[in-house]
Amino acid sequence: MTSIDLNADLGEGFGRWRLTDDEELLSVVTSANVACGFHAGDAATMRRVCEQAAERGVRIGAQVSYRDLAGFGRRAMDVPPAELAAEVAYQIGALEVFARAAGTRVSYVKPHGALYNRVVHDEEQAGAVVDGVLLADASLPVLGLPGSRLLERAGKSGLPTVAEAFADRAYTAEGTLVPRGEEGAVVTDPEAVVDRSVGLARDGAVTSRSGARIEVRARSLCLHGDTPGAVELARRVRARLAESGVRVEAFA
Amino acid sequence: MTSIDLNADLGEGFGRWRLTDDEELLSVVTSANVACGFHAGDAATMRRVCEQAAERGVRIGAQVSYRDLAGFGRRAMDVPPAELAAEVAYQIGALEVFARAAGTRVSYVKPHGALYNRVVHDEEQAGAVVDGVLLADASLPVLGLPGSRLLERAGKSGLPTVAEAFADRAYTAEGTLVPRGEEGAVVTDPEAVVDRSVGLARDGAVTSRSGARIEVRARSLCLHGDTPGAVELARRVRARLAESGVRVEAFA
Amino acid sequence: MTSIDLNADLGEGFGRWRLTDDEELLSVVTSANVACGFHAGDAATMRRVCEQAAERGVRIGAQVSYRDLAGFGRRAMDVPPAELAAEVAYQIGALEVFARAAGTRVSYVKPHGALYNRVVHDEEQAGAVVDGVLLADASLPVLGLPGSRLLERAGKSGLPTVAEAFADRAYTAEGTLVPRGEEGAVVTDPEAVVDRSVGLARDGAVTSRSGARIEVRARSLCLHGDTPGAVELARRVRARLAESGVRVEAFA
Amino acid sequence: MTSIDLNADLGEGFGRWRLTDDEELLSVVTSANVACGFHAGDAATMRRVCEQAAERGVRIGAQVSYRDLAGFGRRAMDVPPAELAAEVAYQIGALEVFARAAGTRVSYVKPHGALYNRVVHDEEQAGAVVDGVLLADASLPVLGLPGSRLLERAGKSGLPTVAEAFADRAYTAEGTLVPRGEEGAVVTDPEAVVDRSVGLARDGAVTSRSGARIEVRARSLCLHGDTPGAVELARRVRARLAESGVRVEAFA
Repeated sequence: MTSIDLNADLGEGFGRWRLTDDEELLSVVTSANVACGFHAGDAATMRRVCEQAAERGVRIGAQVSYRDLAGFGRRAMDVPPAELAAEVAYQIGALEVFARAAGTRVSYVKPHGALYNRVVHDEEQAGAVVDGVLLADASLPVLGLPGSRLLERAGKSGLPTVAEAFADRAYTAEGTLVPRGEEGAVVTDPEAVVDRSVGLARDGAVTSRSGARIEVRARSLCLHGDTPGAVELARRVRARLAESGVRVEAFA
Repeated sequence: MTSIDLNADLGEGFGRWRLTDDEELLSVVTSANVACGFHAGDAATMRRVCEQAAERGVRIGAQVSYRDLAGFGRRAMDVPPAELAAEVAYQIGALEVFARAAGTRVSYVKPHGALYNRVVHDEEQAGAVVDGVLLADASLPVLGLPGSRLLERAGKSGLPTVAEAFADRAYTAEGTLVPRGEEGAVVTDPEAVVDRSVGLARDGAVTSRSGARIEVRARSLCLHGDTPGAVELARRVRARLAESGVRVEAFA
Repeated sequence: MTSIDLNADLGEGFGRWRLTDDEELLSVVTSANVACGFHAGDAATMRRVCEQAAERGVRIGAQVSYRDLAGFGRRAMDVPPAELAAEVAYQIGALEVFARAAGTRVSYVKPHGALYNRVVHDEEQAGAVVDGVLLADASLPVLGLPGSRLLERAGKSGLPTVAEAFADRAYTAEGTLVPRGEEGAVVTDPEAVVDRSVGLARDGAVTSRSGARIEVRARSLCLHGDTPGAVELARRVRARLAESGVRVEAFA
Repeated sequence: MTSIDLNADLGEGFGRWRLTDDEELLSVVTSANVACGFHAGDAATMRRVCEQAAERGVRIGAQVSYRDLAGFGRRAMDVPPAELAAEVAYQIGALEVFARAAGTRVSYVKPHGALYNRVVHDEEQAGAVVDGVLLADASLPVLGLPGSRLLERAGKSGLPTVAEAFADRAYTAEGTLVPRGEEGAVVTDPEAVVDRSVGLARDGAVTSRSGARIEVRARSLCLHGDTPGAVELARRVRARLAESGVRVEAFA
């Protein structure tokens, strides 16, 4: 039986502000990408989300970011590699306290926002993120885009890698994501998202923008939780996966 | 043979700014209170100081603070206890990454600045700091003022406590510090500081402001490193302690 | 004909986060307390809110705060007076750019959160806020609680003062607010809030917690916009005031 | 008689940290680029530097930056133009308060660090900086590199522009700066810096890296104040300019 991991960003409030519906998302996903304070996520929120995730048996991952509260981590930054590596490690360590206090561990790392996009192509920053993970824990899996410099560098450094796919994003014929901003980059029809989820999880395949069936091998599907209707859609994805004979569980 | 620990604040720069002469101080002290990013201490500095401390066998402590870069942690803040506890744990966890990467561990916690002063008397915040330490590691010693609410609460919660004394601060007849701002609160004559260091370390005693000899039991002496001549004075203290038959070593 | 000003906090998001429903509130209030970046309010939000306020003829005030994004300005802080004065002036100046760009001016100052509460009693910080306003513009009115040190100091310094009242807060027999945390401190029944608004605006009186009718002289009523149903309640207050023969308009 | 303006970065401390020797620099320069809080410069420092500059008749400029305290504004950032424009205006407005309180005005704008370098080539960000200046004051001169997109866009928008040159940087045969990191990019010999200052100011010419004499038209020379010996070198530059018949005065 095929299985798939479902991951989403959680704990993306800060102080007085809330963004993600953490409790609802924790009832759907198997892996929680928890914000670590650099783009979102104050300490009390990190603690709460770790406790709730641990109670529900949801795996905790460190969602590391550029230091950029004002831009929510969406502003690409030319951070010198040694500084970036240290910042990544700092965030993982801060989250690890709350994961341990909740009886579990940080069990993977996923870059957020502009950093996520940057390390698809940027060798230097991809290497810096990997260095940061190695500083924190040389056995931590790295979650990212298949074919990205990040997963490549992580693999070469001996870190486990986990490829993820997006059911709500269009793919090119080459299997890469259609850049946001281009027409049709985001799949908005809920039924299409559900169908693509099943295709990606069960068959490892999706229809590209040009209509071709392409192979996308991913052990995790990324769901979004910060838009209206997102949680409901995530539930439908999970339910349909189960009906389609796909076991939803955290990656091994 | 009597022994004493020497502690000082290190890594108190931030980004482009430097404050403490970390390398020099590491050649004098046995315990380094490393800033964790809330009042000072960026991630790259924390990493560097941890590596240097580990190389020299200097013990690493987490110098936890209110979140206040603009005020250098010297502005007392009414932080709700649950938030303060989480913020303390966050800082310890972030530093722990770099201590571990350097082959050692965070081995004590000391509050900084306004938080240090606040938890001498404030039950609620003292309890919150203790809760934060417990979240991070229930075996971590807490360094502070003898008789403070902090050490009292830490002791009741089962945490090891380490009392510290100040050779450059005047004491009242009751054995408490003369508040900064009062006349004679700070001892500025270097020779007097050296003499008082020996008295505190070897005899557990010091002359109070009123001229009486009083008992001050402390396992650590706090040295300051951020004023001109401070490192030189710290060296003299260490040398005189050795000459006086006091072994300078980290607390057990 | 009696008139009353209605003020509310606006622009209290930050970057990705939204809190206040600024457009709706701008259709109800006559004075907008705009967050200036220290507890909330990024530059782009400040610009947008100033433009919208100017379009609707709503007066713009600087809602100045302690520097505390993580605590939303709700953590009282012991900021040295010279620093606090400079921080207050800094915020006013930053907002003034956007007010002028929108064709208007910052026309009053109101402290936010913990600073608002602190300057009711704290002479030193009240003086610092007044110094900050004087630095920015010696003709700016200060909005605050009648009887507060803030308004007293502002008046002595020659600044115009504007007293405000709260229709959703209980008053003691002495005319001060029942502290939050005490039973009955907040009036939750919408109809009671509406009635008290009319009483405060038209008659300058309200029923105290003990049942006595007391005089509360205020030229502005503070409405809240960050809770569910708050905007709807604000609308009802405004409508009822009009029906009761009270003109709703910004203070002179 | 030829005249030249001398500008330098001032007020680049933050809270407890100091970087620039502001008082010494104010005795040398005619234009002070004052940090506005985004890469350095707390409110109390901004106030102090503005007062000192006004006392000495030194012109005050807003040294605007990316929001990046941890990286001192040296990390290039992909800030969306509308946000960048608002951030630039915010900084100018904040500084204007202190300039006015000191009896003067902000009289020019100069980007700092990574933003300075970015707007040499980046059309979008150059346009955003210009938009920010226009929001604040459509008569404010913009200081920058001759030939930069920044000055080009500023000029097209009707803003006065002021070209600056660097006596301690090597120039290519085309009159652009040799990028930092390339060999010989920085001129370190003090006597050479002094000579080049005179050549730039009096003759509008300098020897390029390849040995050719090239024309560099600049109304301001940028001096550096944050390295050992920098203030002394600045003094020598100013003295030699005077001896060479160049009047040192703020640009008109």
